Amino acid sequence: MLELDIQIPATEQRTYKIRIGNGLLASLLETVSVQFPERAQFMVTDQNVAKAGHLDRLVAGRKVPTFVIDPAGEQSKHILTVFAIVEAMEKAQLGRDTVLLALGGGTVGDIGAFAASIFKRGVAVVQIPTTTLAQADSAIGGKTGVDSSISKNAYGTFWHPAAVCIDVDTLKTLDEREFKVGLVESIKHAVIADAGYFDFLEGHLDAILLREPSVLATMAERNCRIKGRVVEQDPQEKNLRRILNYGHTIGHAVEAASEYRLLHGEAVAIGMVGAGLIEIEMGLGSQDRLDRITALLKRLGVPTRIPPTITAEQMLHLLGHDKKAVNRWPRFVLTEGLGQVHCIHGQWAVDVGREVVARILSRLY
Amino acid sequence: MLELDIQIPATEQRTYKIRIGNGLLASLLETVSVQFPERAQFMVTDQNVAKAGHLDRLVAGRKVPTFVIDPAGEQSKHILTVFAIVEAMEKAQLGRDTVLLALGGGTVGDIGAFAASIFKRGVAVVQIPTTTLAQADSAIGGKTGVDSSISKNAYGTFWHPAAVCIDVDTLKTLDEREFKVGLVESIKHAVIADAGYFDFLEGHLDAILLREPSVLATMAERNCRIKGRVVEQDPQEKNLRRILNYGHTIGHAVEAASEYRLLHGEAVAIGMVGAGLIEIEMGLGSQDRLDRITALLKRLGVPTRIPPTITAEQMLHLLGHDKKAVNRWPRFVLTEGLGQVHCIHGQWAVDVGREVVARILSRLY
Repeated sequence: MLELDIQIPATEQRTYKIRIGNGLLASLLETVSVQFPERAQFMVTDQNVAKAGHLDRLVAGRKVPTFVIDPAGEQSKHILTVFAIVEAMEKAQLGRDTVLLALGGGTVGDIGAFAASIFKRGVAVVQIPTTTLAQADSAIGGKTGVDSSISKNAYGTFWHPAAVCIDVDTLKTLDEREFKVGLVESIKHAVIADAGYFDFLEGHLDAILLREPSVLATMAERNCRIKGRVVEQDPQEKNLRRILNYGHTIGHAVEAASEYRLLHGEAVAIGMVGAGLIEIEMGLGSQDRLDRITALLKRLGVPTRIPPTITAEQMLHLLGHDKKAVNRWPRFVLTEGLGQVHCIHGQWAVDVGREVVARILSRLY
Repeated sequence: MLELDIQIPATEQRTYKIRIGNGLLASLLETVSVQFPERAQFMVTDQNVAKAGHLDRLVAGRKVPTFVIDPAGEQSKHILTVFAIVEAMEKAQLGRDTVLLALGGGTVGDIGAFAASIFKRGVAVVQIPTTTLAQADSAIGGKTGVDSSISKNAYGTFWHPAAVCIDVDTLKTLDEREFKVGLVESIKHAVIADAGYFDFLEGHLDAILLREPSVLATMAERNCRIKGRVVEQDPQEKNLRRILNYGHTIGHAVEAASEYRLLHGEAVAIGMVGAGLIEIEMGLGSQDRLDRITALLKRLGVPTRIPPTITAEQMLHLLGHDKKAVNRWPRFVLTEGLGQVHCIHGQWAVDVGREVVARILSRLY
């Protein structure tokens, strides 16, 4: 037998720009044309975003082939939607010299970026997030994914955006509940990475809830700096990036147990309080810190307790089926201080016994 | 407006191993288990390969969840097949700690590697090519792709294998025509990169056609060295990799014009002769060199002339729609000596006027 080694060369570091401001949509297509001078543009958005007027503001009468996801929301985050998008791109006779613009919330971003990553071996994607959740979280980081008929995120790639444009004016039209749930990821960022940002959120929550553009822009900037720093160090979620999962382990279980009646951010809020209780149990946390976090979540108006319709047994069962579980039990991301994630032996997600979690769950009602 | 830069860090160079020999299949699963100790294995193959006994030889009674593409061949190289594969992987409860083994010809390799690249943001793929074409060409290089209902290779990614295993014994069961057409890519490798290899092919063609394992292994090695060297320098086909397209521009047109009655290698053989005629016309080639190449192709028993059922007008029309065309006309890869591709201003594909090509086509009947 003969053996040959083939090298896949290193790829160079590259940089993408996040632009943050208000009123950016009107001039965005020109900016994209300057940045990608010889590329055809293709737009992916959804019914809600189109109805809210953001698509018109962005396109402003220009001719850009556009795919409008209908209905908007999770139910369209399916491989069949990607099918339809690729078919629309083919009918528009697009080639690899295309830039796909994903205008919308996390679902549009996930679907659009996934389609971009598999169309003719990959075309550039520009993310234009229009929700608090997408602006804080999903538009940055390069994770893409859609569901199959069997499971969530069965399909996905890592496909980093070529650029991100955050226009906080797009948040004006968000309904109240969606606006609020997206802010939970901002609080999470503060809790895991930046105590000063936590102070800022406490001090400016009223202005944020009034959707004051300058405060929203500052918030977007701080979110992008925190998430960006983590993603830069671990673009493919090998280890450090796990810290972004804070509150998500219990969160995912309660979200699933609620049959997705709880929105993601609401479930994560409960999960963060759960993580806080575990921290106290393990000698990492203080009641004061947990009280501060719980108070901020309550001011925001999101739940901090497991709904009584969900049993602890259900929760333990679902935790055993967590997608990151090893031997049927997940690891937990925990903090040891505001802005400081606990790390053992270089691992950012740590073992917590099932009996500890069971005890904590009983106190999370 | 505020601007932030996010860095996508450089990725390190990595290496994958190509193992070449005969009788390798029997111990391959153990080798894969050693190389990927904690990964679940999933097999993708097709009906022809299974019927030929290669699947049994590889699996040898072990329990490996397997997807058998049925029918074998181009018609299954469709996104719907990928769908079915992903669904089978989900039903086998596989996660990201999976290694997908693609056992078969180019079609199986393309489909399997594409499925691996999009399953849960990407799992490892081991290529086990079983045809002369796949062993010389498609198993190395990381291009994946499947067709949509509208066009060929509408879907695709770059996804380099984690390992390649070439067992030349698998070539024993190939039918004569498929065995021969795959050898055209070997001749192409020699013509663009290695005059010594061309001598070898001339000297050993009879032994190759008798499928003598040691000669087939040497041929596989030389193919992998040539293709590997090119791919290492240009893994994403930005420039140099274009040289692998030698003979493919006219080749793709004649293949499409024949409505795929000509197999890929047969069309490329005609395309190589066409490229040789262009080279002479442009003062790059010699009649002697073209005669040598044509003679070798004829000994192999593949066509070297455009079938009379295809008109020159059809050919010119299709060339204008080549997927790499710029302003409705493709560039051509040309050689200036055996083993030496012509390069102008750093470009490996060069301009050839439409009238030159039209003149050449008339002499290619």
